[in-house]
Amino acid sequence: MAMKLDARQAAELLKQQEEILILTHKSPDGDTLGTGYALYYALTAMGKQASVACSDPIPEKYGYFAKPVLPLTGEPGFIVAVDVADTQLLGPALEQYAGKVDLCIDHHVSNTLYADKVCLYKTASAACEIMAEVIAHLGTDLTPMIANCLYTGMATDTGCFKFSNTTAHTHRMAAQMIEAGADYVRINRIMFDTKSKSRVLLEQAALSGIEFFFDDRCAVITVTRELFVRSGAQEADLDGVSALSRQIEGVEVGVFLREKEDGSFKVSVRTTSQVNASELCKIFGGGGHVRAAGCVLSGPLEQAKQTLLCEVKRALEEIHP
Amino acid sequence: MAMKLDARQAAELLKQQEEILILTHKSPDGDTLGTGYALYYALTAMGKQASVACSDPIPEKYGYFAKPVLPLTGEPGFIVAVDVADTQLLGPALEQYAGKVDLCIDHHVSNTLYADKVCLYKTASAACEIMAEVIAHLGTDLTPMIANCLYTGMATDTGCFKFSNTTAHTHRMAAQMIEAGADYVRINRIMFDTKSKSRVLLEQAALSGIEFFFDDRCAVITVTRELFVRSGAQEADLDGVSALSRQIEGVEVGVFLREKEDGSFKVSVRTTSQVNASELCKIFGGGGHVRAAGCVLSGPLEQAKQTLLCEVKRALEEIHP
Repeated sequence: MAMKLDARQAAELLKQQEEILILTHKSPDGDTLGTGYALYYALTAMGKQASVACSDPIPEKYGYFAKPVLPLTGEPGFIVAVDVADTQLLGPALEQYAGKVDLCIDHHVSNTLYADKVCLYKTASAACEIMAEVIAHLGTDLTPMIANCLYTGMATDTGCFKFSNTTAHTHRMAAQMIEAGADYVRINRIMFDTKSKSRVLLEQAALSGIEFFFDDRCAVITVTRELFVRSGAQEADLDGVSALSRQIEGVEVGVFLREKEDGSFKVSVRTTSQVNASELCKIFGGGGHVRAAGCVLSGPLEQAKQTLLCEVKRALEEIHP
Repeated sequence: MAMKLDARQAAELLKQQEEILILTHKSPDGDTLGTGYALYYALTAMGKQASVACSDPIPEKYGYFAKPVLPLTGEPGFIVAVDVADTQLLGPALEQYAGKVDLCIDHHVSNTLYADKVCLYKTASAACEIMAEVIAHLGTDLTPMIANCLYTGMATDTGCFKFSNTTAHTHRMAAQMIEAGADYVRINRIMFDTKSKSRVLLEQAALSGIEFFFDDRCAVITVTRELFVRSGAQEADLDGVSALSRQIEGVEVGVFLREKEDGSFKVSVRTTSQVNASELCKIFGGGGHVRAAGCVLSGPLEQAKQTLLCEVKRALEEIHP
């Protein structure tokens, strides 16, 4: 079982190290990269040798802070994992370090406490929110570059301060980053107001086939394999598309059907009213949360859709007969 | 010329009044309503008689705080305009008060100083940010309902803390509102993650006709009268559609063409690189800002488009010959 440290204790431990390897999770996002690079810039400013590693290539959009860094010249003296809830998330290139993590700095409730020591704040919106405190205790300057890193993680993990994980503390930390010179206007434009052409084409194609049922109380969006390939979009683009069905006013059950390789359909159900998405998906062997759940239905498409709609209808009738 | 007051002085003045009429601007948004209702709830909690008025109906989505209120029983003893930069924005039903505004609380640089006294903070992201200070000086409780009002104005005027008008102070005020009980998750869902069915249909139709030019460096979205009518969308829905063209990665010039009643085209140009949108629109008698400008071109559509694209091409060639 990992020994628990608070942000001050984590900073004290880091102060004693000289060659530090920082591990981020695979399929890197703004929070793991922001946390990792903020620590990297802070440690190198203190005259220490540090490096950041990731199993996957770093998406170009993070290029304003996630610069290529040199590997350590020797074996790492100390290994820190940031925003990594489980060693499986290290990915193939970093799994060699799975049993050797000295310190994990994270905010996931699901953290498996795999590291020797863990600095875990479960109510933090982002690992960056914790790193902001660690860096304050390290006593190094909060440079504009570090502020860019930390702002990025907090903004991306909260949907720009929109989601329920945002707290008053998150806003106060964001205020500090702005005062320290974070280029938040540019960051927000890159993170929230930029879509790839292929994603726009995918959205358009998916929306052109949107169907409404039961007095518009249910909306269904379908992405077939053919449509997905034709758009040239990436897997990550599907998240945005799946969100569309539940953003429509009056829609109580938003359904997203995505055709898998084997011709079956991955179903995401999002609900905004009293309909229990988890109960609905359980009927088909799936599950999830009250307002967001999923299951898999076998094809063909029309059959999968009808099977599901039959249960959606029943669920809607139960609340307004 | 209006006498200038700071938030404390504005609060002192309000404390002396008994029957207060609060005026909001026409086509009401989250900031004018949030500011007006926050003041209404604060004043009535102090035992004063107050009322909020607006020339236009209040959109349903603000119903969680903008409740119907009784008119004053007699003539108003004191008139406050909130987030109203110019008396023309009062609208037909309130223009009778144009010359009688005792106090204006606003954040617009363009405020015409029409009121007897003005509490104007030009760097405030929203009038709600100023009202938060006024209410603090009034000394009444920051109730969850008042926090809902104030959070709404700050979030909507900043695009959920995304735009350049957001400051460190805005974030600190948002933190206060969350601590005071603002239902920010619900508010953000209503304001930022809810679209009308007609808006979704309009977006889909507009996107299906999106055109790319000059190696995808220019994107053009067109909304004809026919397409607009068919979608059943509202004027306000067009803002979202016009933003789409400049959200696509790699697009340096986003053009939105909207057909007017007389068959001419209203053109919005948004640029993300060195292209000067204002210079571009000036060629056609329009103008605006460096990155956002507009003009009007006569139809038919193909002619308007070609005329504009010719200049877009020239502008793009100038920066990367």
